[in-house]
Amino acid sequence: MAGEKEVKLFGIVGSPFVSRVEIALKLKGVEYQYIHESVNNKSDLLIKYNPVHKMVPVLVHNEKSVCESLVIVEYIDETWNKGHHGDPFLPSDPHQRAMARFWAKFIDDKVVPAIYKAAWNPNEREREKGVEESLEALKILEKKLKGRFFNGDSVGLVDIAGLYVAYWVPIVEEAGGLHYWFNGEKFPKLEKWSHEIVNHPTIKLALPPKENLLAYAKAQFQSIAASK
Amino acid sequence: MAGEKEVKLFGIVGSPFVSRVEIALKLKGVEYQYIHESVNNKSDLLIKYNPVHKMVPVLVHNEKSVCESLVIVEYIDETWNKGHHGDPFLPSDPHQRAMARFWAKFIDDKVVPAIYKAAWNPNEREREKGVEESLEALKILEKKLKGRFFNGDSVGLVDIAGLYVAYWVPIVEEAGGLHYWFNGEKFPKLEKWSHEIVNHPTIKLALPPKENLLAYAKAQFQSIAASK
Repeated sequence: MAGEKEVKLFGIVGSPFVSRVEIALKLKGVEYQYIHESVNNKSDLLIKYNPVHKMVPVLVHNEKSVCESLVIVEYIDETWNKGHHGDPFLPSDPHQRAMARFWAKFIDDKVVPAIYKAAWNPNEREREKGVEESLEALKILEKKLKGRFFNGDSVGLVDIAGLYVAYWVPIVEEAGGLHYWFNGEKFPKLEKWSHEIVNHPTIKLALPPKENLLAYAKAQFQSIAASK
Repeated sequence: MAGEKEVKLFGIVGSPFVSRVEIALKLKGVEYQYIHESVNNKSDLLIKYNPVHKMVPVLVHNEKSVCESLVIVEYIDETWNKGHHGDPFLPSDPHQRAMARFWAKFIDDKVVPAIYKAAWNPNEREREKGVEESLEALKILEKKLKGRFFNGDSVGLVDIAGLYVAYWVPIVEEAGGLHYWFNGEKFPKLEKWSHEIVNHPTIKLALPPKENLLAYAKAQFQSIAASK
């Protein structure tokens, strides 16, 4: 197929930021070549395509690179926007577009860092602060969620930004024996949404296997426990 | 004028993030009402319109609010996009749009925090780290700048994002007697660009007066010196 080789994605296994891009490509029906990078041994190609941050994900389309996961997702939405590429990730109304960008940024600035801090910070007091901050941020997100997905009936920018919350967080909780977030009580709408995301016919085929993430998260928790 | 009251901007004096929005509105020729907020005494209206962050800038257009300065700038670009509203802030090509968003995010994530750290962090070692990080980030930005503005001959998203660098940084250097950044040697292209931005006929009328920013910055430096 002509288009098959023109799209490349540089990624590492298990990264929710790389998964954002993979899922965006799959939802649009774009074929791509996945190039596996190693955290400790970055390829010359990766450094060529992302000289500023030298980080995955990097999308290369017709030899031009795009970096930063949410920037890439918007690029994918604007590039493959014809009928057979499915629903747009952003609405057409400027105010609704701004809202989508606002909430995607909120997830990156407030939700994800707070959950990371709660789960992985080596300092116990910091972890406690992370729990508080993450509960506060998720409460705001729970209130924002009105329908099946953040922008109605199809998966959009905010859902893709929230992939870490939908798929990774329950795995992190299971691995660490934590019950802060998805314990069946606090965030019923987010839990239902998480279920929708994880079982979405296209998304579920693109997510990294749960057992790998679980093993990785367990090892992380052990390493924190060992450093106490 | 019919449109005059439909656009409101909540701001505080001297904020580069508020100035981004003011300049975007003025470049588009959009009339607006400026509502002055106080850092220590936020109005009920501000909290109503930005319940998540309770921070300026907030743009209210036909009673709908938009928050986060770069999200607002994109909203302004998408809303007032007809001929008499001047040049678009983002190019039409998806790859160039992605690049503009990437560099605007780079300024927010890497440039501005490093300069803040270098100038204002109470810890001397941290300030030194800030100097290193800011020089590194500005070197990358200097390399990126090819023409009069970041996207050619008209002011765009990256220039607006970089307003702090163009206007505030030389004032901060003057107030603190610093010579890290715009000393006539290190970043000739950025200095030329800064001059273009600050003397742009529309922008120069919208920037907060230099003497106010200088007085404020001097007071900040004194307060850091006093806390040593």
